[in-house]
Amino acid sequence: MSSSVSPLAPKTVPDMPVIAGVRLATAEAGIRYKNRTDVLLAVMDKGTAVAGVFTKSKCPSAPVEWCRAKLKGGKARALVVNSGNANAFTGKTGRASTALTAKIAAKAVGCSESEIFLASTGVIGEPLDATKFDGVLGRLAETAEPGDYLAAAKAIMTTDTFPKVATATVKLGKARVTINGMAKGAGMIAPDMATMLSFIFTDAPIAPAALQALLKAGVEDTFNAVTIDGDTSTSDTLLAFATGAAAEHGAPKISRASDPRLKAFVKAFNQVLANLAEQVARDGEGARKLVEIIVEGAKTKASARKIAMSIANSPLVKTAIAGEDANWGRVVMAVGKAGEPADRDKLSISFNGIRVAKNGARDPSYDEAQVSDAMKAPEIAIKVSLGLGKGRDRVLTCDLTKEYVAINGDYRS
Amino acid sequence: MSSSVSPLAPKTVPDMPVIAGVRLATAEAGIRYKNRTDVLLAVMDKGTAVAGVFTKSKCPSAPVEWCRAKLKGGKARALVVNSGNANAFTGKTGRASTALTAKIAAKAVGCSESEIFLASTGVIGEPLDATKFDGVLGRLAETAEPGDYLAAAKAIMTTDTFPKVATATVKLGKARVTINGMAKGAGMIAPDMATMLSFIFTDAPIAPAALQALLKAGVEDTFNAVTIDGDTSTSDTLLAFATGAAAEHGAPKISRASDPRLKAFVKAFNQVLANLAEQVARDGEGARKLVEIIVEGAKTKASARKIAMSIANSPLVKTAIAGEDANWGRVVMAVGKAGEPADRDKLSISFNGIRVAKNGARDPSYDEAQVSDAMKAPEIAIKVSLGLGKGRDRVLTCDLTKEYVAINGDYRS
Repeated sequence: MSSSVSPLAPKTVPDMPVIAGVRLATAEAGIRYKNRTDVLLAVMDKGTAVAGVFTKSKCPSAPVEWCRAKLKGGKARALVVNSGNANAFTGKTGRASTALTAKIAAKAVGCSESEIFLASTGVIGEPLDATKFDGVLGRLAETAEPGDYLAAAKAIMTTDTFPKVATATVKLGKARVTINGMAKGAGMIAPDMATMLSFIFTDAPIAPAALQALLKAGVEDTFNAVTIDGDTSTSDTLLAFATGAAAEHGAPKISRASDPRLKAFVKAFNQVLANLAEQVARDGEGARKLVEIIVEGAKTKASARKIAMSIANSPLVKTAIAGEDANWGRVVMAVGKAGEPADRDKLSISFNGIRVAKNGARDPSYDEAQVSDAMKAPEIAIKVSLGLGKGRDRVLTCDLTKEYVAINGDYRS
Repeated sequence: MSSSVSPLAPKTVPDMPVIAGVRLATAEAGIRYKNRTDVLLAVMDKGTAVAGVFTKSKCPSAPVEWCRAKLKGGKARALVVNSGNANAFTGKTGRASTALTAKIAAKAVGCSESEIFLASTGVIGEPLDATKFDGVLGRLAETAEPGDYLAAAKAIMTTDTFPKVATATVKLGKARVTINGMAKGAGMIAPDMATMLSFIFTDAPIAPAALQALLKAGVEDTFNAVTIDGDTSTSDTLLAFATGAAAEHGAPKISRASDPRLKAFVKAFNQVLANLAEQVARDGEGARKLVEIIVEGAKTKASARKIAMSIANSPLVKTAIAGEDANWGRVVMAVGKAGEPADRDKLSISFNGIRVAKNGARDPSYDEAQVSDAMKAPEIAIKVSLGLGKGRDRVLTCDLTKEYVAINGDYRS
């Protein structure tokens, strides 16, 4: 969909190792796009645990409703993702479409329909013709191989300008286990929750309930701390799959998230989530600047989060950054509108380490030329010190550019 | 500041009658702008009642703090408004600046400083040099005349592309009374509350407490139902002044807002507020479309308001309208993210009277060409029927264009 890669894209793409028990395949089903892959099938070995977190939208898509219902079983054998059509706001047709997709996939993989997980992204409100999966999924199941995560990440893109993958390898007990992840953004991105599609795969033997607890805790400071435009998709889906294959070479079976043997794993797992979430911000529609908002000295972490989000979602702050203007007045505005405890006369604000405001007024040492120069950087950190308490939080966003308006003003045309 | 008048500007400007007991004067104080007026002085006769509502920002400007404190007296003799500098986030200097302005104004008018009301709009975070008012206000007090409301409205503009005035004449008892109003927008506009500067003048004899009650009730469905960008200014101020001069030709003195003799007055008063609020939306920064969001069938009016605001503040809905795209999927998204009761399968959505979605799916009679044609209109009404209850509400907003980004990306340069 997009013509040029975001200037904020990571300079290198990691080599993605295989994960025992996971096989991938992609195809061109012609759902909406031409001459590109738009379907991903991931086939998992028997015994794979699954966990998920989803949009908090009151009008979720049919695939989100499907996954929520199937998550209760805790087991997964396959994931089917399509791009180009979100199968959202498609009513009974949408439910029928997910059921048919699951039926086709279950037959292709040889499992129960309740072990099939589905995600769709793209246009909302258009019926998704699931018959297009007939044949395609069977062929994909036959050809699926342990491997090309980058190709998989490409098949799930919509307005993304680059595929998003991340990986980590870590010790669990005495065995090495691997965590691979992929994500797609890049608009309609706000927390509550996963704010896009993302899929995590690991060979660690972790029971469904423990995996669910890890995922829920992990998103809080990663995917839930990213916002592009404050808009929450009907389709936000983050699924994690643990095949357990590493048990064969000695990884201990984990049944509780609080298991102390998980410590290194949790850290690596959260790093993969954080890496993917940051890539989503780096690919925000039309983004030219990655913006980190740090709020400290708030009454609580929750209060710091609300204020950080108020700043991150302010069109006036975001357009000022696009204009390379250290407009701290708009940051004050956004602090004020958050409705959280704040004392104007204790506020300090800095842009990329240069303090521009102190004790509720312009910093006496403020040097316009120095600040203007700092604002030319592709990564901008705005730090707000409230001076009230010890609450601290951090969120990521991007600037608001004319390109965002262009991308979203003719998405369907 | 802006180069061309909004295409949504009213085609005609009303003749503004004089209001007995109110005299106006404007000047070029050179606070920020060159070759235009930037100071307004309104002088009111003794006995004028005052009421006000202000931003809910936790970091209000110095003039807002000043007005809030002085409102307790209930009496006003003068209003001083400057454009170009908001005197917000200016710390102790800001407080000193408001005190000095009030002192100069009180001397010029010959009243107590507690009867002076102040409002400032423009850049945040820059010290306001109140000594610039010295001399200017004295001259203005001498030359003030019962009159030119349009000139007054021009003096308080910032990024506005046209001055905003409204008037109504109505019977109070057997006497005719007049209500004049002016407002300025045009960005950093979200409710909670007045979301800009607006001043209402009337010769009706209404006591301060009654006037305050009228104003508070009146803004709910007018200024509080307008949003441009979801950003709330630190300076939002709406003040109402009632000189009481109409008592001389028989208007009854009103001490309670519930007085039945006020019925026609309240209607006219609210119409003036609604007219000004709509003009603010029509002059939203970069706006090319006036957008009315009507939500019906919600559980309650408050629930309908939240959903309407979620739609009105969605960047994705607003960019779609800029692109003349009846993207009802994004409307569903915004309904979903509001967090209010909604049932996807009961939702119906129409654009300018053409139903595009019904019972949670595309309307079977949907005709893309017909809808595309309707979206070319400069005024777009989006109606969402939830089918849950009798809650109904309406808010006004505008589209989000590249011009909004341009205006706000180089506001200071």
